[in-house]
Amino acid sequence: MTSQLFSHDVQHTLDIAGIFVFALSGGLLAVRKNLDIFGIAMLAEATGLGGGVLRDLIIGAVPPAAFTDIGYFITPLAAAVVVFFLHPEVERINWTVQSLDALGLGLFAVTGTAKAHDYGLGAVASVALGVATAVGGGVIRDVLANEVPSLLRWDREIYAVPALAAAILVAVLIAAHALGPVTGTGAALVAFALRMLALRYGWR
Amino acid sequence: MTSQLFSHDVQHTLDIAGIFVFALSGGLLAVRKNLDIFGIAMLAEATGLGGGVLRDLIIGAVPPAAFTDIGYFITPLAAAVVVFFLHPEVERINWTVQSLDALGLGLFAVTGTAKAHDYGLGAVASVALGVATAVGGGVIRDVLANEVPSLLRWDREIYAVPALAAAILVAVLIAAHALGPVTGTGAALVAFALRMLALRYGWR
Amino acid sequence: MTSQLFSHDVQHTLDIAGIFVFALSGGLLAVRKNLDIFGIAMLAEATGLGGGVLRDLIIGAVPPAAFTDIGYFITPLAAAVVVFFLHPEVERINWTVQSLDALGLGLFAVTGTAKAHDYGLGAVASVALGVATAVGGGVIRDVLANEVPSLLRWDREIYAVPALAAAILVAVLIAAHALGPVTGTGAALVAFALRMLALRYGWR
Repeated sequence: MTSQLFSHDVQHTLDIAGIFVFALSGGLLAVRKNLDIFGIAMLAEATGLGGGVLRDLIIGAVPPAAFTDIGYFITPLAAAVVVFFLHPEVERINWTVQSLDALGLGLFAVTGTAKAHDYGLGAVASVALGVATAVGGGVIRDVLANEVPSLLRWDREIYAVPALAAAILVAVLIAAHALGPVTGTGAALVAFALRMLALRYGWR
Repeated sequence: MTSQLFSHDVQHTLDIAGIFVFALSGGLLAVRKNLDIFGIAMLAEATGLGGGVLRDLIIGAVPPAAFTDIGYFITPLAAAVVVFFLHPEVERINWTVQSLDALGLGLFAVTGTAKAHDYGLGAVASVALGVATAVGGGVIRDVLANEVPSLLRWDREIYAVPALAAAILVAVLIAAHALGPVTGTGAALVAFALRMLALRYGWR
Repeated sequence: MTSQLFSHDVQHTLDIAGIFVFALSGGLLAVRKNLDIFGIAMLAEATGLGGGVLRDLIIGAVPPAAFTDIGYFITPLAAAVVVFFLHPEVERINWTVQSLDALGLGLFAVTGTAKAHDYGLGAVASVALGVATAVGGGVIRDVLANEVPSLLRWDREIYAVPALAAAILVAVLIAAHALGPVTGTGAALVAFALRMLALRYGWR
């Protein structure tokens, strides 16, 4: 069972952390688009939970985890409150947010790929779904805000490639029966490091 | 069984009424965007049925009711024909459309929350899904028309809050084993009244 | 079993061909929007596979075929490479692309309607799903590229009507127990011919 990749408690904590930072990015975009607190909350929910809901619909894990665990639902609301009261400060710590977002990207790529495998998908499909989980929330965020998804744009640093690297690593680890807490975390850190290097050196 | 909230015939009639008024709003936006009769019909379908299809996908009720009941499919087409031939008149009776839309909002919030509960979702998840059912069609309408969803915008009267109020009321009624035709209709009317007051007094 | 409409090998080949030409149209739009190779690949994937994934989610065929057959996943990538290296040439052979797209439209309308029927949907629902399969990828393409779907616009030649004609024909053939490889291909060719005539004579 690759679902044993992380203990349930560890995985849940990592999931919540990833949802929180993605929701922050949704809330900040809502502020830039002059949306009010409600718009901030809705965009935070859609960004934080979108990728996971998409993944669960595709693998047939309904109702999605986002709807059966109250923590998943409340986390983006907490992020929205943070953005609403602290958004000048949050923007100032942009580097922190970018770092957390990079970590969330890696974690979602790893857990998305592993969950897809658990549901019987093949290696390539699991990788595709891992990437979709990691980047899906951001695409939904940009579509709702009426912007071309930054994922697609050439003038933004690479975003999906780090997720793809982590997802492929996980698929290889599964095939080698070597996926565990340490190697899984390692794969997430590879994505994290690639993304941070891309931001630092402007890889596009 | 909360699905017995309304008798099947009553619920079906209310559903069709809600779909019809939401489809009118989709058709009218299509007219404003200079779309032709076909574009009007497509946007009416997407707006009228979008929220319910989203709800059914998430709770795993596939194929969605919109695809198994021919009345659901034909209703938006009827709304599209009405818009096509009568849109100056329909715009003039804007107040009527707004009222019907507010009624649809309340009804969808109530039936969406109850259906989610029937499929085993918890209280918070049922409320979230009730709101998603009520506002989902409008979000899909605005995304397809390439506009920022009015749901998210600060310069529009509150829309999701009335739906949220009705959905929470339904969850409380379910917990108290007090959900029935009268109390359910009451919850829908609360949403209706809140929305009408918001429009009247410009609550934003 | 209408799934025997075409032998598995024939249907698979036709599916891949349809995905390829739809993916080409996604890739070309990405070029026009100044997206890079990664954006081209993502938009090609979304356009080529979007209609079929939507259909499979709605009928409950999860995980969707696009995620269980590696050929489905790789085909849009091949189209993206073609667009990236050859896009001036591909644009020049616009007529060829339009023809292939028209063929894909017909094939997807036919196979989408037949698959929906296999999953127990009624005639009208099957027709609706056939049309959604045929046009869904293009709508997703345009939404991601931040444009009003050309499907909805009055200033484009008719697109959904040919798909609708083919889907209705398939539903009639199913009802008459007359759906087979020859009649099914005939229905696809009807859509193809209608679309080509619309382009030739500017039907809108």
